[in-house]
Amino acid sequence: MTTITAADLGDLAAGAAILGTGGGGDPHIGRLLAASAVAAHGPVELCPLQELPPDASVLPVAMMGAPTVMVEKLPSTEQVAKATEALSGYLGRGVTHIACIEAGGVNSLIPVVAAAQLGLPLVDGDGMGRAFPELQMVLPTLYGVSTTPMSVADEKGNKVVLDTADNHWAERLARSATIDMGCSTMIALYGMTGAQARDSLVPGTLSLCAELGALVRRSRHGDPVGAVAARLGGRRLFTGKVIDVERRTTTGFARGTATLSGMDGDAGRELVLRFQNEYLVAELDGEVRGTVPDLICTLDRDSGEAVTTEALRFGQRVSVIIAPCDPRWHSEAGLALAGPRYFGYDLDPVGVGR
Amino acid sequence: MTTITAADLGDLAAGAAILGTGGGGDPHIGRLLAASAVAAHGPVELCPLQELPPDASVLPVAMMGAPTVMVEKLPSTEQVAKATEALSGYLGRGVTHIACIEAGGVNSLIPVVAAAQLGLPLVDGDGMGRAFPELQMVLPTLYGVSTTPMSVADEKGNKVVLDTADNHWAERLARSATIDMGCSTMIALYGMTGAQARDSLVPGTLSLCAELGALVRRSRHGDPVGAVAARLGGRRLFTGKVIDVERRTTTGFARGTATLSGMDGDAGRELVLRFQNEYLVAELDGEVRGTVPDLICTLDRDSGEAVTTEALRFGQRVSVIIAPCDPRWHSEAGLALAGPRYFGYDLDPVGVGR
Repeated sequence: MTTITAADLGDLAAGAAILGTGGGGDPHIGRLLAASAVAAHGPVELCPLQELPPDASVLPVAMMGAPTVMVEKLPSTEQVAKATEALSGYLGRGVTHIACIEAGGVNSLIPVVAAAQLGLPLVDGDGMGRAFPELQMVLPTLYGVSTTPMSVADEKGNKVVLDTADNHWAERLARSATIDMGCSTMIALYGMTGAQARDSLVPGTLSLCAELGALVRRSRHGDPVGAVAARLGGRRLFTGKVIDVERRTTTGFARGTATLSGMDGDAGRELVLRFQNEYLVAELDGEVRGTVPDLICTLDRDSGEAVTTEALRFGQRVSVIIAPCDPRWHSEAGLALAGPRYFGYDLDPVGVGR
Repeated sequence: MTTITAADLGDLAAGAAILGTGGGGDPHIGRLLAASAVAAHGPVELCPLQELPPDASVLPVAMMGAPTVMVEKLPSTEQVAKATEALSGYLGRGVTHIACIEAGGVNSLIPVVAAAQLGLPLVDGDGMGRAFPELQMVLPTLYGVSTTPMSVADEKGNKVVLDTADNHWAERLARSATIDMGCSTMIALYGMTGAQARDSLVPGTLSLCAELGALVRRSRHGDPVGAVAARLGGRRLFTGKVIDVERRTTTGFARGTATLSGMDGDAGRELVLRFQNEYLVAELDGEVRGTVPDLICTLDRDSGEAVTTEALRFGQRVSVIIAPCDPRWHSEAGLALAGPRYFGYDLDPVGVGR
């Protein structure tokens, strides 16, 4: 894949929803924005991560907020440009490449919007290889890349530039601004050189999203769930029916728990999924079988389409896949940043596919 | 007064506390910072408002937060420079004059710190002619001057630049950032031209602060309260003893109520003072006798020194003065911005000295 055209956006969005592990925001909103931007400005050139010039000026852009709000308050395409302009004004330098910081969910598509609008190439890769709920939870943090200077823009015309003491402060101040702005904003952050991007990003994740989307589409009458699990190097953990969903939107996040009653080979068993934007813990009959930072993906049992935490409904028949994340997330520093304990679960991470 | 030297800072701080009408933060903290900055960098040149070149680039600087916190978490002088630098970086232009946005309290002194550190002249005037608790409550708002771009800096190294849709959004976003940063920050805001400053600021208020401070000092053995009331064109409303203070720090503000039992000529009467950082309403035996935007100043009955809302203690003997504010505050737009109803009191403003 060397360019992203209008025809690619469907697969890209479908695959992004899978890597979103239930969160990252509804990619179909991103697809609508990206389709509008590509129609207006033409296809987006995709730059393989390892072909980035070391002195490139790379700027990731994303959407921040509660997915439950994002699906109700649609952003404008202008917001993306405003966030980018506010930051490059503060930095006093131009941007040569747009990047994706979160390959899962809406944030796989937002950089397509920015790249099309600004006429810049887009890096094929991302900062996580999945979705995570907080800003500092990216591999560049492990490489010492600063979240800030970063910008936050809303649809009302408000712009904020943050330049913080560390990445945790960036998360805290940007989260407060996002809550004030209505729980959904556009952000530009983790400005880095091409050399830093090559070291710290996960390569090929936008292509992977498009490939996963195509895989689901083509195996619709076969076993799409099995095909996705195989491509991700993971396995199907459970198939069942959603019998309870408890959710609450607090401190800017969509938090909650879902309970699934087994069917097919899992009849008589019960799976509990715990989430904060993303699925974080999977407990099968009371035993922890999957944990963040590995991927816990919930797909429609028949179509293989991803089911986000905010789309989970009583009676849905779903399959849950667990698959390995980028191995750097299992380092000590990676687990400190995004392991189960950071999210408040007193659990060791359960390795998958190792 | 054409320069501010170390010898002027005591009177300036004492007078600033009076115009602070109970709020604006403890000016003695500002005095310590200003003394340190003047010792290091020399006296500050004071520029009369009407001598400002129309094309001057004027930047007011101030401290933001809850006065109750400001007295416990001392700011650093470097913070002032950081706020100014962050903003001039975003604006992409230099600053020729520092200004004061709030003549009451600590914010009469903070611009002295900035002017000394940056080696720039300081405008003799301010944006209120008193103190107010919220950012948009300045006369420049009535003249269409935008609060933003503004910067917020804390002592931990965090900087935020805000560029908002309107002045109320600036207040809201800066307040959230200030609360996150520990309820006390340095800010630079209301960047304006010399022409805008000449139209919209209150002239001579820094000189007035110094004059009030000198008046209190010199009439210590006479009637300092009467001298201050006369200089401000107001009158002594009440003298009494503090018998109850109820206070709470909520949403970043010091709010509360004080009850005073009359003495001297007011024996047998009771005064209730309501405050949000500043004294906002004075009720004598249940009748409203003074309201924001006019000045309600509480002074030590004997020494004439101002008593801030956070310094108010059971048993203190105080006199309460009411005095007229800048007449522009009594316009319809001025009252909408800072009249009693904005603060949640269903009261018409009580005119003083008119």
